Amino acid sequence: MSSEQHSTKGAYVTGGEFTRDTNYIEDRVVADVDAVRAAPTEEPSKIGDPRMQGLTEGAEAWPVEPGRYRLVAARACPWAHRSIIIRRLLGLEDAISLATPGPVHDVRSWTFDLTEDGRDPVLGTERLQENYFARFPDYPRGITVPALVDVPSGGVVTNNYPQLTFDFSTQWRDHHRDGAPDLIPQDQLDEMLPLIRLIFTEVNNGVYRAGFAGGQQAYDDAYDRLWAALDQLEQRLAERRYLMGDHITEADIRLFTTLVRFDPVYHGHFKCNRQKLTEMPNLWGYARDLFQTPGFGDTVDFDQIKRHYYEVHEDVNPTQVVPKGPELQSWLSEHGRERLGGSPFAAGATAPGPVRAGEEVPGANPLHR
Amino acid sequence: MSSEQHSTKGAYVTGGEFTRDTNYIEDRVVADVDAVRAAPTEEPSKIGDPRMQGLTEGAEAWPVEPGRYRLVAARACPWAHRSIIIRRLLGLEDAISLATPGPVHDVRSWTFDLTEDGRDPVLGTERLQENYFARFPDYPRGITVPALVDVPSGGVVTNNYPQLTFDFSTQWRDHHRDGAPDLIPQDQLDEMLPLIRLIFTEVNNGVYRAGFAGGQQAYDDAYDRLWAALDQLEQRLAERRYLMGDHITEADIRLFTTLVRFDPVYHGHFKCNRQKLTEMPNLWGYARDLFQTPGFGDTVDFDQIKRHYYEVHEDVNPTQVVPKGPELQSWLSEHGRERLGGSPFAAGATAPGPVRAGEEVPGANPLHR
Repeated sequence: MSSEQHSTKGAYVTGGEFTRDTNYIEDRVVADVDAVRAAPTEEPSKIGDPRMQGLTEGAEAWPVEPGRYRLVAARACPWAHRSIIIRRLLGLEDAISLATPGPVHDVRSWTFDLTEDGRDPVLGTERLQENYFARFPDYPRGITVPALVDVPSGGVVTNNYPQLTFDFSTQWRDHHRDGAPDLIPQDQLDEMLPLIRLIFTEVNNGVYRAGFAGGQQAYDDAYDRLWAALDQLEQRLAERRYLMGDHITEADIRLFTTLVRFDPVYHGHFKCNRQKLTEMPNLWGYARDLFQTPGFGDTVDFDQIKRHYYEVHEDVNPTQVVPKGPELQSWLSEHGRERLGGSPFAAGATAPGPVRAGEEVPGANPLHR
Repeated sequence: MSSEQHSTKGAYVTGGEFTRDTNYIEDRVVADVDAVRAAPTEEPSKIGDPRMQGLTEGAEAWPVEPGRYRLVAARACPWAHRSIIIRRLLGLEDAISLATPGPVHDVRSWTFDLTEDGRDPVLGTERLQENYFARFPDYPRGITVPALVDVPSGGVVTNNYPQLTFDFSTQWRDHHRDGAPDLIPQDQLDEMLPLIRLIFTEVNNGVYRAGFAGGQQAYDDAYDRLWAALDQLEQRLAERRYLMGDHITEADIRLFTTLVRFDPVYHGHFKCNRQKLTEMPNLWGYARDLFQTPGFGDTVDFDQIKRHYYEVHEDVNPTQVVPKGPELQSWLSEHGRERLGGSPFAAGATAPGPVRAGEEVPGANPLHR
């Protein structure tokens, strides 16, 4: 079993079944520190609800402050990829800078090995582990991405990804770009949050449950769970352009990060092979629709994605050979989803502009001409 | 590197590149023993030419004799599968009996573990290795299928699969069924033999070259070679219903055995993942056309095929978990190849009848209702 996914120690296997470590640094960066500190302590089950008012037991509140925090997010990792897309859709590039560790880490840490000198130019560290240790010298758990780092102290503020992107939407609102979309519309939350939960347990994590299954029965069960969920989503997308209807919400971003990795990685490496994404007409049309929307496809690095899984999981792929396929050009083919109506962004919202200089995707991407 | 493919020792890796052992027991079973013995000694390069008149150095000629020989052919193995299809198309079931070892062998031998007592009911052996040793007590090479065994002595007569099926067509003609097709039409041989050579080196063996590559460069090269050949065949099949034109020949059977394993095994396990077979329109239509023809689909055991590769190649798939996918029902979908004209069998030839009692495929097959 590999202990790797978005983490270096963030998962384990019990009785042949893969289980994800869900203990995170639960601090929050918030618009009104005093109000959040004064709110009643929140139950851990509240994590992942954008309406969370306070802090969980032992967590701290940090102030929103443009330029103070750095988002460390490996392009390879689906959990980190989510934060990269949302930062870009909301136009938080000036407020929160971005560090992208390389795709291949060791058991200790993700590393900043894509830079010439092997150090992050802002944090000055070689390994993200140093930033975890700057906060907690004896930090015992996985060195995970995404991590939001306090640049002055170099310490990790939070790696609590289920909450992080909601806080980007709700707490950083004053720093969103003009035309930033509302990714968590209040009037849709009652429907959206259970859907997001399903996407997390059955799809985002479902592919790992299949791929890291320690035996045939655990794998068979994981496969059935995954495909039951994908069939349900395929059905849902038959009549709706996006998961919640006419416009993109955070639910779509959370599904997209798994779909874009499906054929390059999960189909073969994780044995999620009932069909390719390309053989699920609604999901494939939907995934291409998103890919071709600014903020999605332009954040995808297929080389880093493939290298991460195929090189890090030596126990799944002992040779560490990285497949050359699949062909990628079909991501740009006509998706035909306009027939369902809707538009990526609601009236008043706009697509993000070009990718910022220095944040271009270095590896394979069919958008590169 | 695994030493397994259709053999237990039939391949090795040099400099990261997979190389197939092509030394076989080159005896032949022939219609006219005296004439074949009297013919000049043949060069090894002549193996795999149905016009071969004599024997290679050191080889013996054995007489065609219905009931005397038993074909040992694991359903899992593509090289053995070829002989199963051709025996059935030619109607040699009464003349040559069939033994099917199970899909999972150890380093020593294929075994007859599908029977209740773990022995082949005719040969009485537990392991095919015993039949190799009955012929050559110190047999040093891989215990491969297909193998043709002389039932009275229990010894292997030949495992020379490139020649075996040609001899089924040319030497066993008196024992073919009424309506047996001519799978190697004399007037097409000059075109067919180079094509068969390409199918062998680039496709049948090409998938192994990719899957057993010891490093990235060897894999990348193998992938490029494989897809160059598949593109060429995709093109060839755009205007022709079958590889040689209007009717099935041995070239089709040799390509089919790789195509039917492509999505279940080679795409993921061997990283041949530019596209699935289902994404190559002509090859996929062609493969379904053949699958739906008696003698092809009714010889395919998808369970044995998947178990063989995923369980035997522990160095490629350490967990030995066998994928549940891909879905198989699409093999029965309309292929539309009739638009190209032609018919499976030429005038005067017919499709084989139902599979013989006792020779039904035990495992997963979409033809099972």
